[in-house]
Amino acid sequence: MFTTFTGAHDGQWTVTSMTAVRGVPLPQITRLLISQTRQLPGQTDGWPLAGVASYVRYVERHEDMALAARHAGLGRAEAVCAALIPLAKSAAWWTLTQDERREIFEARSQHIAASLPYLPAIARQLYHCRDLGGAFDFLTWFEFAPVHTDLFEELVSRLRRTEEWSYVEREVDLRLRREG
Amino acid sequence: MFTTFTGAHDGQWTVTSMTAVRGVPLPQITRLLISQTRQLPGQTDGWPLAGVASYVRYVERHEDMALAARHAGLGRAEAVCAALIPLAKSAAWWTLTQDERREIFEARSQHIAASLPYLPAIARQLYHCRDLGGAFDFLTWFEFAPVHTDLFEELVSRLRRTEEWSYVEREVDLRLRREG
Repeated sequence: MFTTFTGAHDGQWTVTSMTAVRGVPLPQITRLLISQTRQLPGQTDGWPLAGVASYVRYVERHEDMALAARHAGLGRAEAVCAALIPLAKSAAWWTLTQDERREIFEARSQHIAASLPYLPAIARQLYHCRDLGGAFDFLTWFEFAPVHTDLFEELVSRLRRTEEWSYVEREVDLRLRREG
Repeated sequence: MFTTFTGAHDGQWTVTSMTAVRGVPLPQITRLLISQTRQLPGQTDGWPLAGVASYVRYVERHEDMALAARHAGLGRAEAVCAALIPLAKSAAWWTLTQDERREIFEARSQHIAASLPYLPAIARQLYHCRDLGGAFDFLTWFEFAPVHTDLFEELVSRLRRTEEWSYVEREVDLRLRREG
């Protein structure tokens, strides 16, 4: 249930760039190792990152059906490009109630509706980690074929312009590549 | 942020009873120690229990205001009785979407509305632990004065009769007492 991300010489993914989009950067790594170790994430510099593929917090039934219809799994042979984007949201976000967060997330930011057209080209997996007490609240993971790189840039830049993103106070963008 | 519960000779609370309401019991302890250690809960027999006082998952703004108006904090001098009720819900619960869970939780089970009249006599704290990967999904904690014991029994028995509770597949009920 836990997924752990850390720098290691024998990591499956080569890091091609690491950018601190907002807040403190993560210490540089050159290869990323993903494993299913059950461990708590680091509190000081961030590494290792750890998260849990958990139950949905905002998705409603009609959205779940739309997402499932366009779903793409991880590990497709052609998806040799990936992005790992750890995020932390502000205290102001976390003191909002459920209805207020849902309103910003979907009614005002269209997080689900605007992301749907990018499926199945861009496969996604969200890992929750706020309750694990590390430096981040979420680890977002994306996999895509090289031909869909521009499409991925469009998705990310669209999300970053939403009202929801105004609550993001730390964001690091790692791009990765594996052997095809 | 983490709160940890474990059996220890120097625990602040004396265990007066431990009942397996549903599913596997927890190994017997005689005193309970509560601390703020950041550690993962046990996976095999359950101990130690660990959870996080986290952001609200279902509460809406109008409910948050009603709850805040009647709020009682932990540690009141007269509240020498406590209950620790760890709960695990079924896979069927966790695959429901947010709107479906909210509908069962409040519209059909009145989890918030029916509990409100018991505040401030019964002080409550919920700790989330599903994402920590232990044996339970929630640790619920209640504190009250001896004179409110019957009131507490009424609250617990009311919750156990709801539709929401039909998704609970493991529940252990520990009652505790401390020196006044």
